[in-house]
Amino acid sequence: MTGPVWRRCEAPGRWQAVPVHHYKPEGTAPFRDVTRQLLFAHPELACEWRYFEIGPGGHTTLERHAHVHAVMILHGQGACLVGQDVRAVRSHDLVEIPAWTWHQFRATEATSLGFLCLVNAERDRPSLPTDDDMATLRRDPKVAAFIRC
Amino acid sequence: MTGPVWRRCEAPGRWQAVPVHHYKPEGTAPFRDVTRQLLFAHPELACEWRYFEIGPGGHTTLERHAHVHAVMILHGQGACLVGQDVRAVRSHDLVEIPAWTWHQFRATEATSLGFLCLVNAERDRPSLPTDDDMATLRRDPKVAAFIRC
Repeated sequence: MTGPVWRRCEAPGRWQAVPVHHYKPEGTAPFRDVTRQLLFAHPELACEWRYFEIGPGGHTTLERHAHVHAVMILHGQGACLVGQDVRAVRSHDLVEIPAWTWHQFRATEATSLGFLCLVNAERDRPSLPTDDDMATLRRDPKVAAFIRC
Repeated sequence: MTGPVWRRCEAPGRWQAVPVHHYKPEGTAPFRDVTRQLLFAHPELACEWRYFEIGPGGHTTLERHAHVHAVMILHGQGACLVGQDVRAVRSHDLVEIPAWTWHQFRATEATSLGFLCLVNAERDRPSLPTDDDMATLRRDPKVAAFIRC
């Protein structure tokens, strides 16, 4: 039987023995200034609890997939697109991203945005928008103004 | 298909449309000044993401169970017992509580303690300590000094 695991928070968005990874391999998808950390992935949980941090002016990949995201903003400020909604988000706000819904997170130009993201441990890979998808997304002016690719 | 769910944080430990519940039914287990909120429970996640808040001087139930807890302190200060360990905890510290391990959270006398707790959606019910369990736990002076029943 394994013992308890204690991981002290050493600085905002940094924990003892939790390595900071690249968000995705360079060149596989468009993103800017994002890191990824895996906080908990115990097999009994059936979920993975991750932390992502977007630097000022950065953004995650615009993508969709079958699996659901449960998100809590941990610190900083930014905005996110989920489906047709674009909303400002800040500390401790919650967002649930349904299956097959386009989504993208952005930090403000002045602040980073750190958020917790829960996913099922068994999940599909994200899909990127095709040119047709992009044309459809851009029909909505507020979506067109928000998205970064 | 359901749309995105947005739940703004309206005050520390309070979210739009997230009801605040009693921790447990009164009289079923010993605890003091604890509330429970269910932040996310989408069936596709396989997990439930909860928020618990302990008032100043309060404590959760001393218990153990087969299921694993993944915990992040969200705000406030306190301490927790996990197995033989008693440690002070504060904002954003992480704790993983293994199967069948005695655990209890306490807020300090001066501050509340709010924490996120992730569990598998399918899980067993907690067990409370028997008199024999209590005698065993109390053999360790630091555990004896910490626990509240």
